[in-house]
Amino acid sequence: MPSVPRASTSSGGDPGRLDELPTPALVVDKGALDRNLATMAGVWPGRRLRPHVKAHKTSGLARRQAELGHTGFTCATIREVEVMAAAGLGEDLLLANEVLDMRRLGAVVEAGARVTVAVDSDAVLQAAVAGGVREVLIDVNVGLPRCGCDPQDAGRLADAARAAGLEVRGVMGYEGHLMLVADPVERAEKTAGAMALLQKAHADVGGDILSGGGTGTWRTNAVVTELQAGSYALMDTAYAAQDDVPFEQSLTVLATVISVNASQGYAVADAGLKAFGMDHGNPTLPGHAVWYCSDEHTIFSPKDGAPLPALGDRVRFVPAHIDPTCALHERMWMVEGDDVVDCWPVDMRGW
Amino acid sequence: MPSVPRASTSSGGDPGRLDELPTPALVVDKGALDRNLATMAGVWPGRRLRPHVKAHKTSGLARRQAELGHTGFTCATIREVEVMAAAGLGEDLLLANEVLDMRRLGAVVEAGARVTVAVDSDAVLQAAVAGGVREVLIDVNVGLPRCGCDPQDAGRLADAARAAGLEVRGVMGYEGHLMLVADPVERAEKTAGAMALLQKAHADVGGDILSGGGTGTWRTNAVVTELQAGSYALMDTAYAAQDDVPFEQSLTVLATVISVNASQGYAVADAGLKAFGMDHGNPTLPGHAVWYCSDEHTIFSPKDGAPLPALGDRVRFVPAHIDPTCALHERMWMVEGDDVVDCWPVDMRGW
Repeated sequence: MPSVPRASTSSGGDPGRLDELPTPALVVDKGALDRNLATMAGVWPGRRLRPHVKAHKTSGLARRQAELGHTGFTCATIREVEVMAAAGLGEDLLLANEVLDMRRLGAVVEAGARVTVAVDSDAVLQAAVAGGVREVLIDVNVGLPRCGCDPQDAGRLADAARAAGLEVRGVMGYEGHLMLVADPVERAEKTAGAMALLQKAHADVGGDILSGGGTGTWRTNAVVTELQAGSYALMDTAYAAQDDVPFEQSLTVLATVISVNASQGYAVADAGLKAFGMDHGNPTLPGHAVWYCSDEHTIFSPKDGAPLPALGDRVRFVPAHIDPTCALHERMWMVEGDDVVDCWPVDMRGW
Repeated sequence: MPSVPRASTSSGGDPGRLDELPTPALVVDKGALDRNLATMAGVWPGRRLRPHVKAHKTSGLARRQAELGHTGFTCATIREVEVMAAAGLGEDLLLANEVLDMRRLGAVVEAGARVTVAVDSDAVLQAAVAGGVREVLIDVNVGLPRCGCDPQDAGRLADAARAAGLEVRGVMGYEGHLMLVADPVERAEKTAGAMALLQKAHADVGGDILSGGGTGTWRTNAVVTELQAGSYALMDTAYAAQDDVPFEQSLTVLATVISVNASQGYAVADAGLKAFGMDHGNPTLPGHAVWYCSDEHTIFSPKDGAPLPALGDRVRFVPAHIDPTCALHERMWMVEGDDVVDCWPVDMRGW
C-alpha cells in the first residue's frame, strides 16, 4: 500500500487543522453531531434506539452512540456485523436484511457476539439454521416494496422458525416509503397504518421486539419498541426539509479550489462524483450554484454577484445523500471550528 | 480487519465458480475485455494510447494494458499515481489534473517513477516546483467548462514553467463535452474545432506531446499524439449507444435474489446504490424493469410476462457508469463463462 494521506491521527499527537487536511475529505462538525446524538437520545433513550450503522459505516461513531446507552445496533450487511463485533460493539446486532449464506454470521456468533437476522422466507430461515445463527426477527412487509413477508404469513414463518430450533425475538417492519412524506400529520397517519400491519403480525409471531422506523418517523412512529434510525447523526438534506426533524447537517465534504476560470465565471473543486453519493443528485454549496460533477471535479459559481473563490480556497459541500457518500471515503475527520480533533476510519465499507 | 470474502485468490489455488462468489461483486467477462483491449490497440497501438486508469482503478487491469504496449498511463488522483508506481507501472505517469500540494508526487518521483502533471495556472506551476515534480503538460481549455488555461495563455504559462526550471513536454486538452455527441459526423467536426485550439496552444508551447481524447472520440480525434481513453476496457452504457464505438460491456455487477414478492410481482437483489455509480441513473438488467435502488437492494420485475426469478438466483446488472461503480468495490473478478479465473484488487480507490 502507498502512503495514506494524514493530517493527524486518531489518538494522540498534535491535532491538525482543517486547512491542512488532504482533500476531498469527509468532515464532521463535532458540535452538531453531539447535539444530534443528544436530541435523539432524549426522545429514544438507551435500548429504545437501535442505531442503524449503514448511514455512517464507522465504528468510531457507533462507539459514541453506545456510550449514550444505545448498545444494540442495526446493520445492513454482513461486513457491518463483522466489524461491529470485532470493535467490541457486538452486544446485540440486528442484520435487518435477508441473507442466503450465513456462514460468516455464524462465525461472528461463535466468536461471542449476539447476532439476530431478519427472515422473510423459508429459504432464509433455513440459511440461518445452516449458517449457525440462532436468533431471528420475522421481517414483515408494511408497504415498502422491498423485503418482508406478507403480514398474513408472519405467524406461520415464526412457527416454522421455532420448529427449526430458532429463537424468534419478534418482528421488524420498515416503513421506508413514508420517511419523506412532507406533511407530518399525513406521515403520522400513514405510519400508523403501516405499523398496524406490524402489530397484527406481532400478535401472530410473539416475542418482545417490534423493530422499525427511521429518522423520518422519529416523531410519528408510536408503535415500535426500538427505532432503527441512522441518518439523524450526520443528516441528509432530504430529511432536513421536514419541519419535525430538527437534526443538523453535521457532515460535509471538504474540497480545494484547484482551478478558476474568471472569464467564464466558474471555479473547479477537487471533489467529484466519486466523493459524493449521487443517487439524490448533485451536492450543494451554500451561496453557490453547482454546475455539474465529473469523476474528480465539481464545477460551481457564486450566486448574487459574489466574487469567485481564489485558487487554494477550501469549500464544504453538502452531499445529497450521506449513506453512499460515507461508503466512498476511507475516513472521516472530526472538527471543532478550524481544529481537527479526531479521525475515524470508515471501517464498515464493502460487503 | 474482519475476514474478507473470497471465492478464489488471484494466484494459484482452485479457480472458483461464478455461483460461489459473495455478492454484490464486480464481474469482468475476460473474453469481452480481451476483445476490447485488442480492438483499441489495433487503432491506437503502444504509446499512442495512454490508458486512463480512473475508469477501473485496478493495477491488475493496467498491467494487462501495459503488456499490450501501452506503458504510459493517465491518472486523475495522486493515489492513482502512487499505486501505479508501487505496482511497477511508473514508466510514464501523467496526472491529468490540477493539484496544489504535490509533495506526495515528488516522493513518487524521488522513488524512481516518471511523473508529469497538468498545469493550468501559475499557482499549480509553483506547486510542481515546490513539490519536486519536474515535468509538466500545459493543460488547455478546449471547450469543456472545467480545468485548463485559456488557449491564449498557454505560451506564457509554458515560458513561466521553463523559467522556473520545469520541463514542458507539451499540451493536453480534454474534449469531454463532446464524448457523447450522438452523430459521429457532428462529433468529428466539433472535435476538430476543439483540437484546433489545442494545436494553436501547442504552437506556442512546444514539446512532443498533444494529449487528449477518450473512448467517445477514439475514431474522431485525429490530432492528439496520445489518446487518454479509459472506459473502452470495461465500457459504459452511454458510450455503447454510439455506432462508431464498438467496445463490449465487459463489466457487470453480480447480485443474488434474496427476496421475491410473488403477489406484487417483484424480486429483490442484494446490490443497491452503494454497489453502483448512480450519477447516470439506475443500473439496468436485460429483460427486466428496474423499479428502484436503495442502499443495499435493487427491486426489479421481469418484462413481457416472463416468470419471476427464484430465491438464490444470480443476476448481473449493467451499471449506468462504470468509473464510480469500480470505486465502490474492493475487487473485481475475472470470469470465463461460469469459471472465475482471476481476482484483481481495485487498489487505486480513495485519494
